[in-house]
Amino acid sequence: MDKPEILNNVRVVMSHTTHPGNIGAAARAMKTMGLVHLYLINPRHFPDPQAVAMAAGADDILQQATVCRSVDEALQGVAFTVAMTARLRDISIEVRTPREAMPELLQHAASQPVALLFGTEMSGLTNEEMGRAQVLVNIPANPGYSSLNIAAAVQVVAYELSVAAELYRPSLEAVQLAPHEQAEGLFEHMERTLHEIGFFSSQNPARLMQRLRRLYAKARLEQEEVNILRGILSVTTGYNARLRKRYLEEHQDVQEH
Amino acid sequence: MDKPEILNNVRVVMSHTTHPGNIGAAARAMKTMGLVHLYLINPRHFPDPQAVAMAAGADDILQQATVCRSVDEALQGVAFTVAMTARLRDISIEVRTPREAMPELLQHAASQPVALLFGTEMSGLTNEEMGRAQVLVNIPANPGYSSLNIAAAVQVVAYELSVAAELYRPSLEAVQLAPHEQAEGLFEHMERTLHEIGFFSSQNPARLMQRLRRLYAKARLEQEEVNILRGILSVTTGYNARLRKRYLEEHQDVQEH
Repeated sequence: MDKPEILNNVRVVMSHTTHPGNIGAAARAMKTMGLVHLYLINPRHFPDPQAVAMAAGADDILQQATVCRSVDEALQGVAFTVAMTARLRDISIEVRTPREAMPELLQHAASQPVALLFGTEMSGLTNEEMGRAQVLVNIPANPGYSSLNIAAAVQVVAYELSVAAELYRPSLEAVQLAPHEQAEGLFEHMERTLHEIGFFSSQNPARLMQRLRRLYAKARLEQEEVNILRGILSVTTGYNARLRKRYLEEHQDVQEH
Repeated sequence: MDKPEILNNVRVVMSHTTHPGNIGAAARAMKTMGLVHLYLINPRHFPDPQAVAMAAGADDILQQATVCRSVDEALQGVAFTVAMTARLRDISIEVRTPREAMPELLQHAASQPVALLFGTEMSGLTNEEMGRAQVLVNIPANPGYSSLNIAAAVQVVAYELSVAAELYRPSLEAVQLAPHEQAEGLFEHMERTLHEIGFFSSQNPARLMQRLRRLYAKARLEQEEVNILRGILSVTTGYNARLRKRYLEEHQDVQEH
């Protein structure tokens, strides 16, 4: 698989971008590094002439861009997501530099769609959006002024990806990671199950689900592993249902006596 | 010498920039990576409110920027210059990637001022400007669309420099390179001397001087070496002057007889 083919499996996802000029500048940055697929989650203004002006010949990227209404829609079919963060957060998935993260992204891009997820100009990504990623990337910057323009961040990461693609060698064991929607199906199932078995009574569900997302992000879940985990969840619920049924029966007995 | 101190020896030189917004965006890119010294050779519009708007908090870089009238003025005192090129040219000095070039730039920046030289938005640097550099850098890009925005190019190179500075270890032999104006003094002396000795009668002087610049750029001229070479040139002219004098005397003799 050659470099253009691998890069063809990479989508750049920009969430809630405020300034259309930044979308155009990001498209130009992408194209200079051989990236073609742009996904926009609820952009404030798009399409827009300012985006076209800043794209400067990369307007084909804008024309083919996909506008989505949610991060889950944008990540449909994606097996591996790297999310950008300007800050090193409280609850974090692994945080790496672009140079550390791009080789792994490429390994997955050789066989499956992958994504680079960028937040808004002012506030970056939400915790919910970051929870969709397997890896967080922070571009090392001046501690006193770390505010990269969003298109400049796209340029740096796309550049690192392009340089890494020049050096890319396929790894021996190619694994099939679970696509985004399968992983999300697992997390829904897990949350529902934990509710059912009463696990959340003494826990903060949102925080606990973030911890669990982090755990499974590190694991790089494969499809079969998702099936196994969901199988366990189903059995757990089934067991719980039987327990409850028996309890209700016994309770009835008590009342009857 | 720590990272901020080394980066304090690096100047970013932008030649004949057309759009003031690009100057502002470049200032922002510089500041995110810890660079502070901006030199502008004949910018079309500067100062300008668009530059301030695009600088987004890096306007201190703009306020301290030095406006120059020539590349030689901008490179005054600089011992090592890396010039950016979008194309791989006919007559070239060494062409490297940013990743290859930044470690050497840092070695020199540890003891002397160094420069990153960027050309105009449309046409890049002139051959004359590139002749002032010891190394050319080309950012590897999509062969079908290699047109990085100038501020995006500043961002990529400043990023590479910042990452290299994290890994920087001083080399054992620190050399004192000849500052720019000493090297230029040598080239003027050389050109004058070659004219005097009649070397250019069968050669294209401009092209030959480019070749010589290339040769000495590769050598990374030290101050003492410049002195030696200029000593040789002086002796050459002296020798030539004596030869001419003798020739004229003999010629006179011939006429007299």
